Amino acid sequence: MQGMTRRIVLAAPPVGAPTEATFRLEEAPLPPLADGYVLTRTLFCSADPGTRSRLSAGASYARPLKSGEMIDSFCIGAVLESADPRFSPGDIVALGGGWAEHVVFPGRGYIQKIPHRRLPLSYWIGVLGVPGMTAWFGLTRVARLKDGERVLVTSAAGPVGATAGQIAKAMGAAKVVGVAGGGEKCAWLEAAGFDAGIDYKVQANLTDALKAASPDGYDVLFDNVGNAMIDAALPLMRRGGRIVVSGQVADYNTPPELLSGLPNTRYFIASRLQMEGLVVFDDVAAFPEAQAQLGALIEKGAVKAREVRYRGLESAPRAFIDLFEDAAAFGRRIIEVGDES
Amino acid sequence: MQGMTRRIVLAAPPVGAPTEATFRLEEAPLPPLADGYVLTRTLFCSADPGTRSRLSAGASYARPLKSGEMIDSFCIGAVLESADPRFSPGDIVALGGGWAEHVVFPGRGYIQKIPHRRLPLSYWIGVLGVPGMTAWFGLTRVARLKDGERVLVTSAAGPVGATAGQIAKAMGAAKVVGVAGGGEKCAWLEAAGFDAGIDYKVQANLTDALKAASPDGYDVLFDNVGNAMIDAALPLMRRGGRIVVSGQVADYNTPPELLSGLPNTRYFIASRLQMEGLVVFDDVAAFPEAQAQLGALIEKGAVKAREVRYRGLESAPRAFIDLFEDAAAFGRRIIEVGDES
Repeated sequence: MQGMTRRIVLAAPPVGAPTEATFRLEEAPLPPLADGYVLTRTLFCSADPGTRSRLSAGASYARPLKSGEMIDSFCIGAVLESADPRFSPGDIVALGGGWAEHVVFPGRGYIQKIPHRRLPLSYWIGVLGVPGMTAWFGLTRVARLKDGERVLVTSAAGPVGATAGQIAKAMGAAKVVGVAGGGEKCAWLEAAGFDAGIDYKVQANLTDALKAASPDGYDVLFDNVGNAMIDAALPLMRRGGRIVVSGQVADYNTPPELLSGLPNTRYFIASRLQMEGLVVFDDVAAFPEAQAQLGALIEKGAVKAREVRYRGLESAPRAFIDLFEDAAAFGRRIIEVGDES
Repeated sequence: MQGMTRRIVLAAPPVGAPTEATFRLEEAPLPPLADGYVLTRTLFCSADPGTRSRLSAGASYARPLKSGEMIDSFCIGAVLESADPRFSPGDIVALGGGWAEHVVFPGRGYIQKIPHRRLPLSYWIGVLGVPGMTAWFGLTRVARLKDGERVLVTSAAGPVGATAGQIAKAMGAAKVVGVAGGGEKCAWLEAAGFDAGIDYKVQANLTDALKAASPDGYDVLFDNVGNAMIDAALPLMRRGGRIVVSGQVADYNTPPELLSGLPNTRYFIASRLQMEGLVVFDDVAAFPEAQAQLGALIEKGAVKAREVRYRGLESAPRAFIDLFEDAAAFGRRIIEVGDES
């Protein structure tokens, strides 16, 4: 089974938004299967906004990629060979692989056997994968959401935000408001159980619109967007409010010297606010329990997942570029790389 | 004892920095001593930077003052009459009074009997009053300082910062670095036990200077200055670092639309940072225990307090304006209003 695979690597670090020229499809030899490793054939992989922060140098929780390195992503894979006793050929696993048709991956890395087949496989790199876990631990560990609180979620039609808002509602939040770009996304938010969806593109003053949607303000802000969105919400945060810094997709393509900041920090004192950055891999040991609880919410229909599908490994760059460009389609970007059979 | 007193009131809300014209000295009748109130004769009062946020409308933890209202401040007072059974004539109390020679104050308000006379009376509105308690609870409750951590304190020669740095050192911090303006302040910091005092006025790049003083970065930032200082420190915060937003003296005189922000918020995710605003009145029930512990540190010389004295009630506006103007003198601004005898 040792041999070649097709994969997508970084061709040239982008300045500003990524383009097709950022990436290159190549054939490459697979490394030998060292002790403790597994070889998987990719069924699905993902396009993740967080990858943007690895394409150029700068502050990130992960080191920047070098030109010629594979773009990492989450994968659903079928185990073909295993040199780790915890995995066997035929197992279906979710793993932190990359954009490749085959992956050799350490069994001690971010890899887990799919525990049941009651939900679509792709969910294990979406609503039950890192995006869903980010929503879960952002609300529970970081925001310490309490019954009856008011929650504001930004990028609310994205995989993290949509899941966060629905979980908050299922956990007893009194009000859940989502911010998204475009009327179609906002209509979907309301269909998914958000109390209101606010289209930031049509607001003259976002703070006023957020206030109208929740006149008593917000106890929790779950932010996936960046500085401008946090700053707009700061005046509305209730006393003791918590801000989860989960992602900054609006700022990833902005050079540091052009970033706007948070002028409204005076509300940190006035309202005793707390703000904390979240990297969900810190919670990885607790994923199985959270997946069981969140999976139950999905099975009973309390949490819905949206996907946008792309066909073939070569579509992965497009799926990624669309994250920053395509205003119409929304949901978890899933690339169908191979069939299960 | 019912009668008149002299007091200082808000004459006109300032735009930008306060001036003498911001204030007015007047004679005013004292209210009758209602049930539950005490009448005190002021021995000392204070000039507090936090008062700036009450002179103009805007986000604050307290409502803005109206023209004609007394400027509030902390006072050491001798009780002359009491209609609260917990206080008796002759008691010496610290209270949240104002710039006045006599104050009628509710016994259920922020008022406490001075528990011992082993330290100067004025310390109870300084290093053992709200500035010292802000330092104490900022380090303990908000920052949760642990043994061996690295601490950065800004406005470090001010009453809050100087106390915070010395407490941190006494609590076992591995390194305590202070930022202040001017060589005299920095020399005092090092004499007071700070590992380094950094004069921000002579640094081409403050972040570089902060890094040189602690190449391994900082676990705790205790900030009394505002956005620019926090932003300079964000790249240096260690994983899991805590930022205490204790005061924003550099920003109090800046109109909101001209405030700079925190472009470096990406470090919140990269370094899992936490930032929290502090209003020490939330901790008032725990003051006596903290004052006992901090008082013991002062008595054994581990924490030193600096004061700048002003003579007479009429000097209070000058003491306050100097907070924002006078670069040479530093320490708690104490106005000597009356003698104890």
